[in-house]
Amino acid sequence: MRSDENWLVRRTAADSDRLGETESVFALSNGWVGWRGTLDEGEPYGMSGSYLNGFHEQRELSYPEDGYAFPQRSDTVVSAPNAALIRLWVGGDALDLRTGTLRAHERVLDLRAGVVRRDTEWISPGGHGVRVRSTRLVSLPRHPIAAVRYEVEPLGDAPVELRLCSDVQANERVPERPDDPRAASVIRDPLNAEAHRCDGGSGVLVHRTDRSAQRVAVAVTHESEMPEGFATSDDCTADRLRMCVEGRLRPGQRLRITKYAAHECTPVDGMAANDLADLVVAEADAAREHGFDALLADQRTALDGHWQTADVELDGDPELQQAIRFAVFHLLQAGRAEGDRTIPAKGLTGNGYDGHVLWDTEGYVLPVLTYLAPEVTRSALRWRHAHLPEARERAAELRLPGATFPWRTISGRECSGYWPAGTAALHVNADIADAVLRYVAATGDDDLFAGVGLELLVATARLWHGFGYWSDEGAFHITGVTGPDEYAALVDDNLFTNAMARRNLLGAADAAERHPGRAEELGVSPAEIAGWRAAADAIHLPYDRKRGVHQQAAGFTEQPEWDFAALTEDDYPLLLHFPYLELYRKQVVKQADLVLAMQRCPGEFTAEEKRRNFAYYQARTVRDSSLSAASQAVLAAEIGHLDLAYDLFAEAALHDLADLGDKTSDGLHLAALAGAWTAVVEGFGGLRDQRGELSFDPRLPARLDRLAFGLRWRGQRLRVTLTRDETRYELPDAAPEVEVTLRHAGEPVTVTGQTAVTRPMPPVPDPGPEPPSPPGRRPARRSAG
Amino acid sequence: MRSDENWLVRRTAADSDRLGETESVFALSNGWVGWRGTLDEGEPYGMSGSYLNGFHEQRELSYPEDGYAFPQRSDTVVSAPNAALIRLWVGGDALDLRTGTLRAHERVLDLRAGVVRRDTEWISPGGHGVRVRSTRLVSLPRHPIAAVRYEVEPLGDAPVELRLCSDVQANERVPERPDDPRAASVIRDPLNAEAHRCDGGSGVLVHRTDRSAQRVAVAVTHESEMPEGFATSDDCTADRLRMCVEGRLRPGQRLRITKYAAHECTPVDGMAANDLADLVVAEADAAREHGFDALLADQRTALDGHWQTADVELDGDPELQQAIRFAVFHLLQAGRAEGDRTIPAKGLTGNGYDGHVLWDTEGYVLPVLTYLAPEVTRSALRWRHAHLPEARERAAELRLPGATFPWRTISGRECSGYWPAGTAALHVNADIADAVLRYVAATGDDDLFAGVGLELLVATARLWHGFGYWSDEGAFHITGVTGPDEYAALVDDNLFTNAMARRNLLGAADAAERHPGRAEELGVSPAEIAGWRAAADAIHLPYDRKRGVHQQAAGFTEQPEWDFAALTEDDYPLLLHFPYLELYRKQVVKQADLVLAMQRCPGEFTAEEKRRNFAYYQARTVRDSSLSAASQAVLAAEIGHLDLAYDLFAEAALHDLADLGDKTSDGLHLAALAGAWTAVVEGFGGLRDQRGELSFDPRLPARLDRLAFGLRWRGQRLRVTLTRDETRYELPDAAPEVEVTLRHAGEPVTVTGQTAVTRPMPPVPDPGPEPPSPPGRRPARRSAG
Repeated sequence: MRSDENWLVRRTAADSDRLGETESVFALSNGWVGWRGTLDEGEPYGMSGSYLNGFHEQRELSYPEDGYAFPQRSDTVVSAPNAALIRLWVGGDALDLRTGTLRAHERVLDLRAGVVRRDTEWISPGGHGVRVRSTRLVSLPRHPIAAVRYEVEPLGDAPVELRLCSDVQANERVPERPDDPRAASVIRDPLNAEAHRCDGGSGVLVHRTDRSAQRVAVAVTHESEMPEGFATSDDCTADRLRMCVEGRLRPGQRLRITKYAAHECTPVDGMAANDLADLVVAEADAAREHGFDALLADQRTALDGHWQTADVELDGDPELQQAIRFAVFHLLQAGRAEGDRTIPAKGLTGNGYDGHVLWDTEGYVLPVLTYLAPEVTRSALRWRHAHLPEARERAAELRLPGATFPWRTISGRECSGYWPAGTAALHVNADIADAVLRYVAATGDDDLFAGVGLELLVATARLWHGFGYWSDEGAFHITGVTGPDEYAALVDDNLFTNAMARRNLLGAADAAERHPGRAEELGVSPAEIAGWRAAADAIHLPYDRKRGVHQQAAGFTEQPEWDFAALTEDDYPLLLHFPYLELYRKQVVKQADLVLAMQRCPGEFTAEEKRRNFAYYQARTVRDSSLSAASQAVLAAEIGHLDLAYDLFAEAALHDLADLGDKTSDGLHLAALAGAWTAVVEGFGGLRDQRGELSFDPRLPARLDRLAFGLRWRGQRLRVTLTRDETRYELPDAAPEVEVTLRHAGEPVTVTGQTAVTRPMPPVPDPGPEPPSPPGRRPARRSAG
Repeated sequence: MRSDENWLVRRTAADSDRLGETESVFALSNGWVGWRGTLDEGEPYGMSGSYLNGFHEQRELSYPEDGYAFPQRSDTVVSAPNAALIRLWVGGDALDLRTGTLRAHERVLDLRAGVVRRDTEWISPGGHGVRVRSTRLVSLPRHPIAAVRYEVEPLGDAPVELRLCSDVQANERVPERPDDPRAASVIRDPLNAEAHRCDGGSGVLVHRTDRSAQRVAVAVTHESEMPEGFATSDDCTADRLRMCVEGRLRPGQRLRITKYAAHECTPVDGMAANDLADLVVAEADAAREHGFDALLADQRTALDGHWQTADVELDGDPELQQAIRFAVFHLLQAGRAEGDRTIPAKGLTGNGYDGHVLWDTEGYVLPVLTYLAPEVTRSALRWRHAHLPEARERAAELRLPGATFPWRTISGRECSGYWPAGTAALHVNADIADAVLRYVAATGDDDLFAGVGLELLVATARLWHGFGYWSDEGAFHITGVTGPDEYAALVDDNLFTNAMARRNLLGAADAAERHPGRAEELGVSPAEIAGWRAAADAIHLPYDRKRGVHQQAAGFTEQPEWDFAALTEDDYPLLLHFPYLELYRKQVVKQADLVLAMQRCPGEFTAEEKRRNFAYYQARTVRDSSLSAASQAVLAAEIGHLDLAYDLFAEAALHDLADLGDKTSDGLHLAALAGAWTAVVEGFGGLRDQRGELSFDPRLPARLDRLAFGLRWRGQRLRVTLTRDETRYELPDAAPEVEVTLRHAGEPVTVTGQTAVTRPMPPVPDPGPEPPSPPGRRPARRSAG
């Protein structure tokens, strides 16, 4: 790999069977518009998709046996009209990589430039050769804008007859996968045409959805460079804009089309169709005036700014160096600093999970972006706050106090159709509270704290206080809920839930006392605060004295063991081969749960407890969820199992690039990508941030010679570099008088502006032999050990 | 009420708003054919229905979030062509009770005659008066046959122009009730026409279903008595036979039509359409040759035979006297002695629960019919055995050993669409085993025991043995299942399930040892038997030492209490107003569960435990299920709370007659009807039959002067009469040398043929004050106390 190769992700003709996966990997987004990495010509495709954050349709849910408060509707992401299409006919043959002769073909995602480049040499079935190059971007600074530059040259000595049509297509067919519960529910032709016009290479489509009553408009405009003699024509209908050029291209000549597309969606009652059309036309025109080269330059500038903080350097493992940059790139482009917007579980890269926002956002993605792009976390927290009314309504429907946020949603309303692994997973409320507390600790953003933050903390604290109950023995219990592990449900005292609820209750109490005026407006009394503290102090964390380990939930360690010996490789993932009846009642763990509790709430456990707990749960965790490996890596690193940690990190980092879960074609798993960063920074960097204090306990894995990462803390950019001998902390941008105090291996360290501090690497504890994973489920070995 | 009035159930014009309920109450059945008690004219109706045991269609199930082994299809009862219809036009006006003037109207269900009689005097809108009388029966001895005699006379002095059409209608519209999860799923036009013919007042329709591939044929033939001058005509189409007579009826004249209908269904690949048509035509013709009066006489004879054993006499409460006879009548007519047929939860009286067979059959209905009509129990057990292959397949799909019988089904395949309250309710397997053991004990039918019985016992014992597990402490646990109480799910060590599994395991072990050759054929080894006994001996029955009560399931008594004080009457049934999230985790009980365990497995509890347990659970049981009151009555009577027992008995007995659950219109609740008998015989009679021994512990409630009931035991008819002072046991039909030994209040009593034994009534224990029911949920008081 060349030195800059690990800033690039390549796919060639050899990857033609990885079509859907490549479309996800090459998806471009700015957190508002997302274009899947389909080929310019649109064919062949795995799944086309052009998504706008929040744009969705509703569908009815029906249950074989309905129940009270089962959601009756769900949100489903639907594709906006697809403006990425540029179709080419060469001597009458449509350019299609499955036909003719492919002399060369490569597409590259450039992680610094923020573009997908394509270079293809193709001989048509009729024997005419062309070279086609394109560059595609979704503009990071201009939220509605995406653009493509598409160039064609003849390959041989003879002129070729070309016809090139730039399309915008509404209601593209989406493949249905009815057999997989994790796939999207496809609505056919969800967009109803409201208006279309085109004229001289520019055009606009306006559509609306039926039930969600949203309006979407896409405008395109073009620049064309072509030899004389080319004719232009438009052919526009309600669902398709088609703008074509046609003519003869001689050797040495070039046809170059640059397409600028603008996208907007609004509630139907928010803006009239014509006004929305005018808006996107103006946005597209403005982009064209700005010019493609300027968009490219803006893109590079925006990313340079991001990478300055966010780049992670892994010296010694080029593949994972590429993978971690790929992960960070997608996290950065998934977020939005402006507006009240959040990040769905698959970002805007596919329609998996129906395009829903899950707890992945607060549980996995925001804990990373809080340090890399805190303005994105702020926007996502504001989005949660904007949907507090729906969460209060849902709590009232469930006859609970406070607010219960949805397990899965786009609109803010609960869309989960299997309540034991949806509505019952109340921990999402504590995860949101945790995201607030982490954001405030990392940024010191007291405005958000007093406003949005306090209200979120109070509403969720009220839920826990009302939902839990006091035993006769004076312990506070939270029963009948589902924790992170989806191979268990409706358990009592899930330790993760309880520990996070404690953090939620105490965080709300602290916040209310810090902002007493605002707290009073919210009706918080000193007695209520005292009640929260009492519940937090008494919350029960189940522990098995006999086995000397904590219990994932009450009684977990007394459940029957799973018969791993009877399994074959084909039995994974277990959820496709065993009923919940078996999975729920046995000691088999889909994903980090108690281990996640140890990661998020490290102060609740002693080092020895962590060691014993980790070994116990490592042997029972099958990682059938992409959310798991990174958390296990973090704890493995903390305990000192650095090889295992490295291998778990690799699994998280390669989850989508290597399609380890066989589901990347539906979209990227942003939580797994976030996990790659988390495994590095919380795992090998040892970052923890409990109680508002930043601490590191670094340990360099054997496979690496050097590891560096950066993060933002209280407005400063902190850079941390691990080598074999020492850790270096620096504030590269800070004025000399700036001070940041942190802990290195438990000892306080003060870093000042422009003066790096180095400390020797702390010794790695000797944890003894690596604890076994379930048979056949140890992650692949790539560590040096 | 006249002395024979409590053999009659009447409805008059005043009940016209109880249309659907009346159709269920007046439903006639012979266990093979069931006709709802619709008006002869078909209009107005609540829901028409003509059901054949086992005749159903399939429908797809779809889940918002699918899972492994979730059933993908369900069975749904569909109506056979309705042959009950006789439409009348008077002077051109259709007889419709909603029009014209109703001078008199009464319908009567005669519980001894086994018919519904109707007598109506109606003045048409055009001013023509007629008296219409009809008698309807579904023949108990002739399984395909139902018949109606319909008579019209002019009321006034003037002749009337009449047109009478006898119809058979396929694909009648069934009202849909999408809002109620307990209602049926309606398939429109489920019957596809295959053949129809009619000729001279006889005709036949043949149809088939699409997916279940069943064929149904209905033939009718008529006898007509009419004055000269009446014309006849036929008008038959693929979905409707219509055979009419038309003419002028003078005062003093009478038009009388007698309609004989025959019904059959078969698998499509079982009998050709024409052959099936010929069969039903021959059956209808044979019925006509036999004649209506002979059918009436057969009906009376069949019922006399039943009532001789089954009548229950309650002196002192005429309303409940009627209600208990109504209950027993419907139980008797729901069953089939011939073939491998079972009894759906609503019999053949409606389409509620989709016409499914639930655990109601073995849990509630067969424990009654075993004593009243043991041949029906045998038939139902043979039906379960016939579907053992599907139950084995289902167990294999669930990756469990042995067999798992469906929670709800018609075809034998699992149809439950909410697994926590379906598939997870594994106790249905122990309920089936219990039905086998009870049947064998009551009948001594060793043939069934060695054949069908042993195989059912072994398959279910293997399930428990493989599903349960051994704790380190040497206890055998059954975890992650759902017991009878549907306000709890996925619990550990549900006491009812565990106690019944113990009975299942020991019963299988005993049976295998009694029939060693047959056991060997089934692969049962001595080691396997030893394993069953060991598990049974060690099975865990959870007990709360602090509170001194058994736990419905592990931890139940430590769960939060339900806040009954916050409820209003409108909050019931709770399942329509609270989420499972709340119901499952709190101490609120829908229906007898631990109390049912005390009823079914009385030997597992001391008298003092029963007293304390009953009080504890009575305070927390809301009886939102019709299955509950009778079990509570049995235990209340045993403990000595006779007034409470009587009031609970009344609730069970009146459940459908008074439509207490507001669901009778969908069909009768056979388990609640069975419960009425159970409350009398197990409650006030104190019948128990553990370990093959029949025992009574009688106590006469204050409201009654005398109580008598009968049952069959080892081929003998035993009659038991309770008065204030004594209990009388007799074998009225037995030869003098016949002896039956039973226990009276614990003391052995030997009754011989034709010599009654009397014993003084045992003293009723003083249980102290009546334990409280949940606020507002004590049953209505009708006891003398």
